[in-house]
Amino acid sequence: MTGGLLTDLYELTMAASYLRRGMTGPATFSLFVRDLPPDRGYLVACGLEDCLTFMESYRFAKKELDYLREEQRFDPATLRALEKLRFTGDVSAVPEGRVVFSGEPLLEVTAPIAEAQLVETALLNHLTFQTAVATKAARCARAAGAARVIDFSFRRTQGIDAGLAVARASYIAGFAGTSNVEAARRHGIPAVGTMAHSFVEAFPDEEAAFEAFTADFPDRTTLLVDTYDTLGGVRTAIRTALRADGPGSLTGIRLDSGDLGALSVQARHLLDEADMSSTRIVASGGLDEYSIAELTAAGAPIDVYGVGTKMGVSADAPSLDSAYKLVAFADRPVMKLSTGKATAPGAKQVYRGTEGDVIALRDEPAPGGSRPLLVPVMRNGRRVSPAEPLTRSRDRCAADINTLPARVTRLRRPETGAVALSPRLEQTRDELRAELLSRVHRLRSHA
Amino acid sequence: MTGGLLTDLYELTMAASYLRRGMTGPATFSLFVRDLPPDRGYLVACGLEDCLTFMESYRFAKKELDYLREEQRFDPATLRALEKLRFTGDVSAVPEGRVVFSGEPLLEVTAPIAEAQLVETALLNHLTFQTAVATKAARCARAAGAARVIDFSFRRTQGIDAGLAVARASYIAGFAGTSNVEAARRHGIPAVGTMAHSFVEAFPDEEAAFEAFTADFPDRTTLLVDTYDTLGGVRTAIRTALRADGPGSLTGIRLDSGDLGALSVQARHLLDEADMSSTRIVASGGLDEYSIAELTAAGAPIDVYGVGTKMGVSADAPSLDSAYKLVAFADRPVMKLSTGKATAPGAKQVYRGTEGDVIALRDEPAPGGSRPLLVPVMRNGRRVSPAEPLTRSRDRCAADINTLPARVTRLRRPETGAVALSPRLEQTRDELRAELLSRVHRLRSHA
Repeated sequence: MTGGLLTDLYELTMAASYLRRGMTGPATFSLFVRDLPPDRGYLVACGLEDCLTFMESYRFAKKELDYLREEQRFDPATLRALEKLRFTGDVSAVPEGRVVFSGEPLLEVTAPIAEAQLVETALLNHLTFQTAVATKAARCARAAGAARVIDFSFRRTQGIDAGLAVARASYIAGFAGTSNVEAARRHGIPAVGTMAHSFVEAFPDEEAAFEAFTADFPDRTTLLVDTYDTLGGVRTAIRTALRADGPGSLTGIRLDSGDLGALSVQARHLLDEADMSSTRIVASGGLDEYSIAELTAAGAPIDVYGVGTKMGVSADAPSLDSAYKLVAFADRPVMKLSTGKATAPGAKQVYRGTEGDVIALRDEPAPGGSRPLLVPVMRNGRRVSPAEPLTRSRDRCAADINTLPARVTRLRRPETGAVALSPRLEQTRDELRAELLSRVHRLRSHA
Repeated sequence: MTGGLLTDLYELTMAASYLRRGMTGPATFSLFVRDLPPDRGYLVACGLEDCLTFMESYRFAKKELDYLREEQRFDPATLRALEKLRFTGDVSAVPEGRVVFSGEPLLEVTAPIAEAQLVETALLNHLTFQTAVATKAARCARAAGAARVIDFSFRRTQGIDAGLAVARASYIAGFAGTSNVEAARRHGIPAVGTMAHSFVEAFPDEEAAFEAFTADFPDRTTLLVDTYDTLGGVRTAIRTALRADGPGSLTGIRLDSGDLGALSVQARHLLDEADMSSTRIVASGGLDEYSIAELTAAGAPIDVYGVGTKMGVSADAPSLDSAYKLVAFADRPVMKLSTGKATAPGAKQVYRGTEGDVIALRDEPAPGGSRPLLVPVMRNGRRVSPAEPLTRSRDRCAADINTLPARVTRLRRPETGAVALSPRLEQTRDELRAELLSRVHRLRSHA
């Protein structure tokens, strides 16, 4: 969704002031996550694609300008300026799927300050939400070991748009598919699904329901077995399959309640006894990385985990401590001193080397053997390249996570990756802070 | 957003099976929240309006049918049936803003089973998310006592759509306005905003920034004072106002970091000394109902709370344990027995009386002195009345919450409102459960 009013009122108010005063000098804003949530050692960058679409199409429609004139009493000169306004800036960003750590810019915008300010809300929104969810999903996928994980979250994500974004983010993070059909269509993600309890209940009994489903979908028969009694359901599923096309005709069974570890062992035993060792066991019901890790550790014979709500809203960390901060304006670095929220000044680059990451000023040379994480993604308001295939972001994510040490990937109280500031960035920050503090003290002594 | 594929794949698979088998008998599904999150004593129903829009416009576009044919191998007869499919059902629902408790249907759909199944995902999505957020917002509004609360969440909601829904839900729940301009325009909510730290930093110093803002917006000057030093910022704001139009010209100041309680007391003192007792103090920065309640209890002289992320994602309860369950099909009640997820059969009504709520079968007479919570909202797939004004939902919410006892509204470990099942509903449930269990036992003894 795009539109000039998809922003906070203060962005428009400030933009009006900047435009009126001819303050069109380039500003650089840096978007980063200050501190990671307690049980996160890394983040998976996600949401860039929606940011680029938003910036490229940013403009004010007539009804939006009418609203600003009639309800917000914007003056004619400002409205004329807004009518012409487009996003014309340069943007560098970390590509989707890349692993990043706290304090590292995910994206930097350099643009006339009014433009840079107006897109703040949407940029923060997309990157905060999608990075939180991609990170949660990566944890689930990793916890499942060799088992596959699929996205079942659509019914309880925070909105329909959110459901589409979650399916995409979780696929980047390593999920094998999604139940969300529109997301599957739009992004080319494998669509997956089984049946609901209501299907079983709509027939006179479970056996009749299983027979109908097996007849209608002989090539993808996954039967939900826990509507009345789980192991009874497994036996009914086996009987139905044997009566239909034999042992190979049952693709899978799904367990959705009870003790998934114990039930999967018992179900596996029944299936193997019936010569159905290729029938997969799908488990679902309130799962997240913590419960999946327990099942994996216990050796539960589960082939596919359907993960829903807790991943889809990133339940234990539904937001990130993200910020979009002015770091340079009209060629001078800036920073704020607000308690607990001080920023580091200047346009930046992050260099990743074997010793960890270094956040540096953008014009510093790369340390030997390191590579820059931020790449140019937009110039003069236009993308520099088309959207990359989702599989490329997905491969990047898998490769990045594979390089992380266990102390960073562990689920509980991990360490975060090593991040240092370059000596020049530290010096710039210290000098500017000293200058600002001395000004504050001068003002205090006048008060 | 609407579209036939905004659903889970299994809904489409099951629908295909129902259509193929001519299973067009009416099904009733009941949507309710099983258990409330730990610190919730009540819920504020929200999201109905989006559900109605979704159901009214539900259909398959050509590109969607193409996807089902090419990627999901749906057969021609099913595709023809889906092409013609519209939602033609009857819906009753609890109006937005109404207080409800666990187990009480928020919405019931009666429709041919394929239609009722296909809209499940979107109905659950809208009602779960928006009810969670409206409930969180109601808690924040109540915690603020006489102070006003405004929505600052847009930058960190779970998507752009989510931001629009949060602004609307929080307004229904008692917020006074939103920073989200598009939501304000679309729903007629008051738009509110101040300035960002970047505005202060874009000028040579704080005083120059305050002067510019005061000149540009003389009728709505709220100055952000904590960029460098909060009390220094308050003094600068006062000086700027006195130099401009005198004490009345400063609408407000905003505190966004540090000890908001102590700083608000000191800021109030400085403002009052300068004869600026009408200047309002706005506080923001990581607030939720718990921190607002502490500030209120401490008597912090804060006039307006800007509440962002924690409300916008309902941080401590980002989802609800919602369910959409088949309760009747082809005129017989149904239920499932799944461990921990058993349902109560039959189409229902909730009657609210002075002794609490009674969940009854829909055709039972109302207990004396009670009123039904579910009202008809859709007949034959069409709304029975136009969308109600947002202020009516808002008034309903305020009135409902006012009737709740303190043990239900308290923020920590509240009791939930009294909800009983009618004797007839209990009897129907017990009889059906006994019948299903005896069938399960018969099957077990055969196994």
